Amino acid sequence: MNQEQLVAELQRIVGPKEVIHKPDDLIAYECDGFTIVRARPRAVVFPNNTQQVAAVVKLLHDNGIPFIPRGAGTGLSGGATPINGEVLISLVKMNRLLSVDFKNRTAVVEPGHVNLKLTNAIAHEGYYYAPDPSSGMSCTIGGNVGENAGGPHCLKYGVTSNHVLGVEMVMPDGEIVTLGGAVPDMPGYDLTGLIVGSEGTMGIVTKIVVRILKKPQGVKTVVALYDSVDDASQTVSAVIASGIIPGALEMMDRVAIEGVEAGNYPVGYPKDLAAVLLIELDGLTAGMEAMAEQIVDICRQYHVREVRVAQSDKERTLWWANRKTAFGAMGKISPDYMVQDGVIPRSRLPEVLRRISDISRRSGLRIANVFHAGDGNLHPLILFNSANPGETELAVKVGSEVLQVCADVGGTITGEHGVGIEKQHDMPKIFTQEEIDAQVEIMRVFNPHNLCNPDKLFPKPSRCVEVKRAAHTH
Amino acid sequence: MNQEQLVAELQRIVGPKEVIHKPDDLIAYECDGFTIVRARPRAVVFPNNTQQVAAVVKLLHDNGIPFIPRGAGTGLSGGATPINGEVLISLVKMNRLLSVDFKNRTAVVEPGHVNLKLTNAIAHEGYYYAPDPSSGMSCTIGGNVGENAGGPHCLKYGVTSNHVLGVEMVMPDGEIVTLGGAVPDMPGYDLTGLIVGSEGTMGIVTKIVVRILKKPQGVKTVVALYDSVDDASQTVSAVIASGIIPGALEMMDRVAIEGVEAGNYPVGYPKDLAAVLLIELDGLTAGMEAMAEQIVDICRQYHVREVRVAQSDKERTLWWANRKTAFGAMGKISPDYMVQDGVIPRSRLPEVLRRISDISRRSGLRIANVFHAGDGNLHPLILFNSANPGETELAVKVGSEVLQVCADVGGTITGEHGVGIEKQHDMPKIFTQEEIDAQVEIMRVFNPHNLCNPDKLFPKPSRCVEVKRAAHTH
Repeated sequence: MNQEQLVAELQRIVGPKEVIHKPDDLIAYECDGFTIVRARPRAVVFPNNTQQVAAVVKLLHDNGIPFIPRGAGTGLSGGATPINGEVLISLVKMNRLLSVDFKNRTAVVEPGHVNLKLTNAIAHEGYYYAPDPSSGMSCTIGGNVGENAGGPHCLKYGVTSNHVLGVEMVMPDGEIVTLGGAVPDMPGYDLTGLIVGSEGTMGIVTKIVVRILKKPQGVKTVVALYDSVDDASQTVSAVIASGIIPGALEMMDRVAIEGVEAGNYPVGYPKDLAAVLLIELDGLTAGMEAMAEQIVDICRQYHVREVRVAQSDKERTLWWANRKTAFGAMGKISPDYMVQDGVIPRSRLPEVLRRISDISRRSGLRIANVFHAGDGNLHPLILFNSANPGETELAVKVGSEVLQVCADVGGTITGEHGVGIEKQHDMPKIFTQEEIDAQVEIMRVFNPHNLCNPDKLFPKPSRCVEVKRAAHTH
Repeated sequence: MNQEQLVAELQRIVGPKEVIHKPDDLIAYECDGFTIVRARPRAVVFPNNTQQVAAVVKLLHDNGIPFIPRGAGTGLSGGATPINGEVLISLVKMNRLLSVDFKNRTAVVEPGHVNLKLTNAIAHEGYYYAPDPSSGMSCTIGGNVGENAGGPHCLKYGVTSNHVLGVEMVMPDGEIVTLGGAVPDMPGYDLTGLIVGSEGTMGIVTKIVVRILKKPQGVKTVVALYDSVDDASQTVSAVIASGIIPGALEMMDRVAIEGVEAGNYPVGYPKDLAAVLLIELDGLTAGMEAMAEQIVDICRQYHVREVRVAQSDKERTLWWANRKTAFGAMGKISPDYMVQDGVIPRSRLPEVLRRISDISRRSGLRIANVFHAGDGNLHPLILFNSANPGETELAVKVGSEVLQVCADVGGTITGEHGVGIEKQHDMPKIFTQEEIDAQVEIMRVFNPHNLCNPDKLFPKPSRCVEVKRAAHTH
């Protein structure tokens, strides 16, 4: 099928305006939030409903043309990058909130529904949607399902897979299936759980049944400033050991603080701090005061320099805005940066931070650490300058060394950003060949012709297609 | 391979005493807790370690002999029943607690480790294992993994799949693999989640990494007595809507109360009650008093006859002992009973209870309702007398009608007891043929020769082997 025929057929299904195919218009779709690898898609198509998705997929399947589902393109591991010139099936027009059942605490959304809009739509009844990635204002729930997205509040409330009860999905041959449902723990195999986090390799999710939660009655946010990373890490362990499960427990180190203070929402943290902890309690107001005091006591026990409970909503909002813009703010202190994402057993935090600091010293690249400390999900930000010859490659190498440290201590190579193309060659750090083969076999059950997001997630002995590597500039 | 050769080979692997093969000795292994269907296994083998499991499985695989993993045999859906005369691989000798990591809150157990023993082993440090099936004193964690077992406290803490981080498993060809790990949310597909609840059809789990939790600082238990099932149901909805998530929220109706009061732990509930709610708060003691008062207020709002907060540990323990023996206590008021297990959206509780009551009236069989009301997981107990001709068949039919009601309101046919052989023919009530086929294909990836627990979980066009149907007598 030549390009002209393909475009005509796609337009017949979705309408003439819903297909992008001119080379210049396609540039915006060459990558997602992982910008180091870029490739031109053959076309981008914008279906409006499940039937259109199914018809598009059937057309592509029958003609052996590979394709990739795409949400808002905020992914950080290149899951939506068309490395083989795939057709991108964008779900952004399928963005409706289809129904809300407050009594049973579920909602049904289309995949293009923006994460934060769901919370806004149900807030009037006192409900919210829990997974809160930093990109919540733009990322889609369909994309969150693909990557099994997390966020600061996943410490207490769990990641996307804990909030998805069922999905409607177009299989890679165009068939429409329903998995899971409006009640949890269906019999048979947990295929919904298998789809969540499968990074678009098993089909295209067209409807999502999610859990919604009652908004906590109250929130108390504590900020604690430390002269030592070790003391801050020990505080994290001690808080968890106390039996309190905070809604969020975030940490930033000295370089990260430098970044956020240079960003759009400076808090005024002293420049010589070693670490900041942001600890947020949520739940019923009864007893919360006492719990906050207990947190403050623990901070003091570990030599906190200064500890403060937010005195107003404004103060709390500023602390969070400061934290949530940490990635972007790195652009203020470095020409380029690369976000890493690893998970470690919480108790190894001090050791891992020391080893990351060693890697930084040896390589000469600065590394900022911003992370969900409560669940051991690190986000080292590797700062570099792509204008310096070889420095991009060095940053990639440093990222891989950081992941090796995570794997060495019994952790894993991605917490919430996915594998995509960024980490497909790191998978052997934590899986044997047999374990990878088993996963590929499972994928083949859904995707036997490997047309749906091919050549992602798993290491390839050799890449089918050469991809253009470009620096990640801000 | 003839029987003599098989026994000799098995004995060579596990030792002569670890194989049961004489017909009389095999009688005890003809069924699990689902006693309506019985069949004689070819042999029962008791491996001591993973290598022995792998060697046994390889032997059976290479000779085309089907086999089934078995825990304590407390399953309620016939998952461990050797309907094809399979070899049973009992994991009860592999019952060690291999390690505990309090700091990272994980423990590693062998599959034969008894559920409650884990909690007892870690209680001295203030920790416990959350999933609490009523059979906790005897059921094994390996069996819990197979069935994705629940329990009263799963309302707040989630079922087994929420507490298993990884497994070591012997594949149906004898290969040993590791899935998941000690940190949550591994990249790649969630194969651990797929194994949990797969009812022994994908392999034999030989090690389990579980989450352990800090014991709640305090507990408050409220019992509420109602003159109307509707009022009790409304209370359940109102409690959940208030934002309080109790550790457990249990309900029993009039027939169930008659049963538990005739059992070993009578509380002294009045005989004319329509329903009892058992509501348990757990967590930090700060604020718990106020929360209990709020619960009491809600009960009053829905016309509770009497409501009481437990005044001592002894009182609380009695209430729970009374509730936990509900299934067994039915034996005191009926010669036979059959436990059903369905899930419904919480808001449909009053309607579903009315429809179950209609089914009871029409069939002439009494039905007791005991259930995890908070998460809509019903356990209707169908009372019958197998000595009356046709009554066993009628009870089976009534059970199926009850499941149809659950399916009709958007629920499902099993919450925590599994499908096994009991409900394999009910699967089409909630899955299309395509959805079942997809699951069978997934199973085949792990179990291509269908040797590992064959002919369970999915409906068969026709049974391969005739099974003896016998009544379930107590």
